Amino acid sequence: MTKFIKKTFKKPGMTPGALVHVDHPSKKQASLSVLDYTLKDFREKNDVKVEDCFQYCDTDTVTWINLDGVHDVNTLKTLNDHFGIHPLATEDIANTGHRPKLEEFEDQVLLILKMLYSDPSRPDEIISEQISIVLGKNYVISYQEQVGDVLNPVRERIRDGKGRIRSMGSDYLAYAIMDAIVDHYFVVLEHLGEQVESLEDAMMNDVEPEMVHLIHRLKREMIYLRKQTWPLREVTNSLLRDESKLITKKIDIFIRDVYDHIIQISDTIDSYRDVLSGMHDIYLSVMSNKMNEIMKVLTIFAAIFIPLTFIAGIYGMNFEYMPELKWRYSYFVTITAMISIGVSMVMYFKKRKWF
Amino acid sequence: MTKFIKKTFKKPGMTPGALVHVDHPSKKQASLSVLDYTLKDFREKNDVKVEDCFQYCDTDTVTWINLDGVHDVNTLKTLNDHFGIHPLATEDIANTGHRPKLEEFEDQVLLILKMLYSDPSRPDEIISEQISIVLGKNYVISYQEQVGDVLNPVRERIRDGKGRIRSMGSDYLAYAIMDAIVDHYFVVLEHLGEQVESLEDAMMNDVEPEMVHLIHRLKREMIYLRKQTWPLREVTNSLLRDESKLITKKIDIFIRDVYDHIIQISDTIDSYRDVLSGMHDIYLSVMSNKMNEIMKVLTIFAAIFIPLTFIAGIYGMNFEYMPELKWRYSYFVTITAMISIGVSMVMYFKKRKWF
Amino acid sequence: MTKFIKKTFKKPGMTPGALVHVDHPSKKQASLSVLDYTLKDFREKNDVKVEDCFQYCDTDTVTWINLDGVHDVNTLKTLNDHFGIHPLATEDIANTGHRPKLEEFEDQVLLILKMLYSDPSRPDEIISEQISIVLGKNYVISYQEQVGDVLNPVRERIRDGKGRIRSMGSDYLAYAIMDAIVDHYFVVLEHLGEQVESLEDAMMNDVEPEMVHLIHRLKREMIYLRKQTWPLREVTNSLLRDESKLITKKIDIFIRDVYDHIIQISDTIDSYRDVLSGMHDIYLSVMSNKMNEIMKVLTIFAAIFIPLTFIAGIYGMNFEYMPELKWRYSYFVTITAMISIGVSMVMYFKKRKWF
Amino acid sequence: MTKFIKKTFKKPGMTPGALVHVDHPSKKQASLSVLDYTLKDFREKNDVKVEDCFQYCDTDTVTWINLDGVHDVNTLKTLNDHFGIHPLATEDIANTGHRPKLEEFEDQVLLILKMLYSDPSRPDEIISEQISIVLGKNYVISYQEQVGDVLNPVRERIRDGKGRIRSMGSDYLAYAIMDAIVDHYFVVLEHLGEQVESLEDAMMNDVEPEMVHLIHRLKREMIYLRKQTWPLREVTNSLLRDESKLITKKIDIFIRDVYDHIIQISDTIDSYRDVLSGMHDIYLSVMSNKMNEIMKVLTIFAAIFIPLTFIAGIYGMNFEYMPELKWRYSYFVTITAMISIGVSMVMYFKKRKWF
Amino acid sequence: MTKFIKKTFKKPGMTPGALVHVDHPSKKQASLSVLDYTLKDFREKNDVKVEDCFQYCDTDTVTWINLDGVHDVNTLKTLNDHFGIHPLATEDIANTGHRPKLEEFEDQVLLILKMLYSDPSRPDEIISEQISIVLGKNYVISYQEQVGDVLNPVRERIRDGKGRIRSMGSDYLAYAIMDAIVDHYFVVLEHLGEQVESLEDAMMNDVEPEMVHLIHRLKREMIYLRKQTWPLREVTNSLLRDESKLITKKIDIFIRDVYDHIIQISDTIDSYRDVLSGMHDIYLSVMSNKMNEIMKVLTIFAAIFIPLTFIAGIYGMNFEYMPELKWRYSYFVTITAMISIGVSMVMYFKKRKWF
Repeated sequence: MTKFIKKTFKKPGMTPGALVHVDHPSKKQASLSVLDYTLKDFREKNDVKVEDCFQYCDTDTVTWINLDGVHDVNTLKTLNDHFGIHPLATEDIANTGHRPKLEEFEDQVLLILKMLYSDPSRPDEIISEQISIVLGKNYVISYQEQVGDVLNPVRERIRDGKGRIRSMGSDYLAYAIMDAIVDHYFVVLEHLGEQVESLEDAMMNDVEPEMVHLIHRLKREMIYLRKQTWPLREVTNSLLRDESKLITKKIDIFIRDVYDHIIQISDTIDSYRDVLSGMHDIYLSVMSNKMNEIMKVLTIFAAIFIPLTFIAGIYGMNFEYMPELKWRYSYFVTITAMISIGVSMVMYFKKRKWF
Repeated sequence: MTKFIKKTFKKPGMTPGALVHVDHPSKKQASLSVLDYTLKDFREKNDVKVEDCFQYCDTDTVTWINLDGVHDVNTLKTLNDHFGIHPLATEDIANTGHRPKLEEFEDQVLLILKMLYSDPSRPDEIISEQISIVLGKNYVISYQEQVGDVLNPVRERIRDGKGRIRSMGSDYLAYAIMDAIVDHYFVVLEHLGEQVESLEDAMMNDVEPEMVHLIHRLKREMIYLRKQTWPLREVTNSLLRDESKLITKKIDIFIRDVYDHIIQISDTIDSYRDVLSGMHDIYLSVMSNKMNEIMKVLTIFAAIFIPLTFIAGIYGMNFEYMPELKWRYSYFVTITAMISIGVSMVMYFKKRKWF
Repeated sequence: MTKFIKKTFKKPGMTPGALVHVDHPSKKQASLSVLDYTLKDFREKNDVKVEDCFQYCDTDTVTWINLDGVHDVNTLKTLNDHFGIHPLATEDIANTGHRPKLEEFEDQVLLILKMLYSDPSRPDEIISEQISIVLGKNYVISYQEQVGDVLNPVRERIRDGKGRIRSMGSDYLAYAIMDAIVDHYFVVLEHLGEQVESLEDAMMNDVEPEMVHLIHRLKREMIYLRKQTWPLREVTNSLLRDESKLITKKIDIFIRDVYDHIIQISDTIDSYRDVLSGMHDIYLSVMSNKMNEIMKVLTIFAAIFIPLTFIAGIYGMNFEYMPELKWRYSYFVTITAMISIGVSMVMYFKKRKWF
Repeated sequence: MTKFIKKTFKKPGMTPGALVHVDHPSKKQASLSVLDYTLKDFREKNDVKVEDCFQYCDTDTVTWINLDGVHDVNTLKTLNDHFGIHPLATEDIANTGHRPKLEEFEDQVLLILKMLYSDPSRPDEIISEQISIVLGKNYVISYQEQVGDVLNPVRERIRDGKGRIRSMGSDYLAYAIMDAIVDHYFVVLEHLGEQVESLEDAMMNDVEPEMVHLIHRLKREMIYLRKQTWPLREVTNSLLRDESKLITKKIDIFIRDVYDHIIQISDTIDSYRDVLSGMHDIYLSVMSNKMNEIMKVLTIFAAIFIPLTFIAGIYGMNFEYMPELKWRYSYFVTITAMISIGVSMVMYFKKRKWF
Repeated sequence: MTKFIKKTFKKPGMTPGALVHVDHPSKKQASLSVLDYTLKDFREKNDVKVEDCFQYCDTDTVTWINLDGVHDVNTLKTLNDHFGIHPLATEDIANTGHRPKLEEFEDQVLLILKMLYSDPSRPDEIISEQISIVLGKNYVISYQEQVGDVLNPVRERIRDGKGRIRSMGSDYLAYAIMDAIVDHYFVVLEHLGEQVESLEDAMMNDVEPEMVHLIHRLKREMIYLRKQTWPLREVTNSLLRDESKLITKKIDIFIRDVYDHIIQISDTIDSYRDVLSGMHDIYLSVMSNKMNEIMKVLTIFAAIFIPLTFIAGIYGMNFEYMPELKWRYSYFVTITAMISIGVSMVMYFKKRKWF
């Protein structure tokens, strides 16, 4: 299940800006890739060295440097120091347990987001990966936890040169990355929504005990999703109010579009949470109904046969002086009486609409 | 049931402003109709070609162009490009899974709403259709998903020339369309309200197991309605604060009127949601009562007859030396004892008010 | 029960400002009465004609025109047109399903309120009637749905000439009417509050199944009351912020007083709603207790007598070779064993505090 | 129990500012006491006449006039008229059913608070008394419902001349009174808190049916306390924003201190309400557990002995041709079979962890 | 369990700024330690006298004075009087039942926080200790309730001279202390979170009655944590808006970092509270399921054997004229009938999916 706290948080009291050097011999070194483009040109390099990225700091082209593996603190530090990124920002990037946020520095804007997607082989499991984006004057650096992301459509658009992406600056690139991430929230939410709705349909027919765990799991995912989405309102609002010159007015309309999507996601999550609450109510109600049905069956059997058994018990007593025992038609009378008692009980329960 | 997410959402990462070309061979081409009027003149044309609409871009008359079928992306694009509508706006119009919103562009205002109505043949099913309205200097373009809407009274008023509609500008026409849509929310809400209240009355008498599903369905519709209504507050507020010259001060009072209606709808939805929660509480309480009643019946029968059956059982034992068996009046004494035990049990339960 | 939507709402899409001409042959014509006063003079006329009211439009005296019966659209329109009231205001007055609101026009302020009171013969039923107040420079026009209201104390004060009412302007009169209406909310709330508290006391002793319906009814009335009271905060706030010259600064302190009352009503409703929720919790808990008690009785009887009956059953078997049957003291031993089993069961349940 | 509405509210529609002349022959006349001090001097007079208070209106000393018994409308009116207090303020003071509020007049500030304390002989009962404070340039008048209050520590400090109270003005005196009242909220809240926590501890061990009523009572007191505390935020905020010259900047820090206390009280009430909700959940859960335990006992007894009794019943039948009856070891075989059935049932329930 | 009110609160009505002299003979005298540093120098003294601290009031070095034991009112007062700290601030420091708050004085800023940590020997018990921080021009004084805190990492950093702490002023020191405290909230929250998640996992398998108490305890700790965290938002916000020259712009970015952590803690607490609510729902649902299972077992046994026992009872009657008793195959027929009844009952319950 999704976790609400990441354990890799910095040790309490450590100096702010200090990087956590975690020893992961099994983990590979961070891999860097560079996409560099203008309206006309386009170059792509994979698995480059840190030093090879330095040249893009001051060019006129728009450069997107992507780093996979923020656990590789050395690479991270070397890269960020060259680009003049504030040590606190570098710490935030290295610490993958962060809340989505936007931080403005003098020459950069730091954007921390959660990327949500599912491994196609296990579609019910949501993978949550922190992605940090540093937007500079003519470059965007994105930092990811591991290889694999949801940004290929953006890369494709840069390669193809279709659309407006190649003609815009680094702020538009940062927007495009954010937009791709938020769009993927819809994919995740849609998948959860389908599960909610198919469970809802199933509950219309019958209620199974294990459904309560499924409801809980879906509620939990919604809580998690909401926790990741809610701060994004603030983040996009800050982008719109941004006073640094990094974000040009031209892309305000695009950011407002992302903002609308975020609001829509939030709204939909809230609706699903309400629906899930209602489903839990149904669950309890149907269980209560079932109990009533079971108790009715028990009571009907008990109320019909217990008195009859008692009558049989009476005439099973061995007293010597029981005049009825000797009478010729006692047995038939008794059986008839039993049948009428039984029938009248049945009719009584029918009248009370017990079955 | 109403869905909270539309599946036709754009593929994640697609270039913003790109139109989704969905291949629906079964769907008809979009149909266009034009209403063009001044205070004195009035012309109406149905099933016109896209090109025939272009002339209305710069006339002095007020023109209402209505497009049924936003899935026909070619027609949509041709029309919008001519009228100089921003690509992002066109994308929003084509994407029918949008949250109600207002977007101001340089020369236009885009308004996205949900139109709610029911097919008279299936009054319990709410149909939700997205309608987008582009308000320009002297024209209004409305975009619908399919043929059939709630705007005929507005068309009627234009044709008749009664009221003030013919003497006002395009902003009033946009208002009139919005007003007709919001008025229809009342119709839908009224219909749901009647169902809530008739269910409430029914629950006063007796509670049926299937009622829990009906309560859930009504709650769900209320959640859906609220999700569509809530953003309209913001939308109308933006219209009132609007600084473009498209919306004249003269119609502020009309927009405030729509705003009041929206608030009233929101309030009423909230009241109904509270009432429905209360109904679920009643449901559970009555179920709990019923269970108590059933258990009382069972317990009364068991508590009266089980001890009596035991006594009968004792004298049904076959021991050779059971002095009571030989006594003359044993049987009568036993029967009398049984009757008194039974009667005192009944009295005990009467005293505890079990029946 | 109180309804959350009035059915007389205007047909969707009708031209705004159009009056609904409802044909009620059984309903009487609207009746008009006039109270005209200065500090020294005072005249009162009942059942006047519409035309007779026109003279009060421009006098120096303060005039209160009261119209009973807003369904009489002709009278309403004639009156309002003469006093120059905006068609939208007239529509709002005619439409009795409105949310409380304040609308400022050029020369008038329109105030729509709900008047709540109970018919003394059926004190549990709350009657809700819409009252609209138009405040002009030197007149107040009040529009009611039917004859009978809560404003007699105000009329009495004008007639008596005591207090400050005769020395103040029309704004004070409007305030006095509003104050009388809001004061009556206290009466209604007090009556509901007494019911809540007497039900609460009754629940301390015992819980009856029908109480759940009473709790629901009271909750519902609270929801209704809240729906009518909540918008009044905004209404009075608007009165305080009002920039028209109709409301003089002198009566700000009185309006703040009304505002305080409204806040107090809102607070008290919220408290009662919390209390009623708590009462529902008690209801469920007591029901759950009762069930436990019933089950204990059943279980005690069953657990004591079922094993004993089984023993009796054993010695009631008719096997030829059952040595115990022949022994001299078998019966007494068996009875003793049964008694000790029974006693130890009782002691076991005592120890577990089942009774 | 604490009441949410006081019945002595003014009759609806009465002229605002009119005093309610309630005829309470049993109630004593109001008693007045005066504390008059400067840094050096100090005079205290009890049971003074109204006229004797008039002299303090314009002196340079700070005067605290305390009136016990606001029901004595004559005394109240005489006093207030001399001090030039607005009729509406006097009405608010006489009406003891008020919400805490602050009202600024030209030369005075009116502060209405609830004083909460318990009679030491009945510590569980919270007494709520309205206290109104009028702060003038060099005097403070406090109005109470009856003799007895929580202000003796303040009087003591004035008498002793310790601390800064004698060196400060009337605004500090008003603050000191307010502070003493708010501090007493802590006493009340602490007492309730102890009850909550001791009940919580008791519930850890076992749950008694009557606890649900205690939880409800405590919840209710919390609702009441919250209703009295919440408006005080606003009241103290208004004091800080106050623009009259009655409240000097010097005492802002003291008022902020009171504000902090009020926030802390509000927070603690909210925490306790959450805890009490949790306790109700525990209550229901434990009841549900108990029910399960009871049902298990019943089911175990029934499931073990009912089949056995049936077997015994079979061989208790009186058919002539029942071969088993004649066999030598039938009885022993049957008993052995019964024991093994019984033991296997027990093992089955053990395995399902029923006991 | 954590308490929501501390009992040591000042006696109601006491003069504000008066210190509570509590007589704790068992408690040791307060102990003072001093850390004094510049970028190059560093001196540390433990167990110094109060008088020895006075010299640091006006030096150019940054000084951190730490006082363990605020109950030692004499030491506290002597120290604070020398440093010119406002009497109200001193009272707030002495009173350990405070809500987190920030108070700005002329030359100082007072910050009151709760320090949360657990004794490693009892990790489930959260220790909450109030820590007050007075920030002056070139000194920070911290006041603690007892020896032992979470600030050793900060001291270590000063001693080592690594990082930026030695090169910054007293405002950075105050920040570093606050940061260390807030970081420890994560430790506490992480520990609670682990408990929540391990309980959640356990509930997936089976539900034990005592879990309800564990859920309640965790909920309670979350309420407590939230109560301590929530006011910190405001506190840090005030620090950012601070207009005194004590807090330099340079450390704004660090305070924003703390602010982000606080928001993240709040968010995570809220998520956990939602999850815990969901877990309580699961608890009730599973209990309800279990009850159904138990009742099914009971009903199946009763419904199968009670009718059969009745049949056996019939043929156990001792009537003289019961023709069936004499028939040759009665017994076999009866047994066969019983078996078929039993089997058909079993099949009936199978069909209804009872097992």
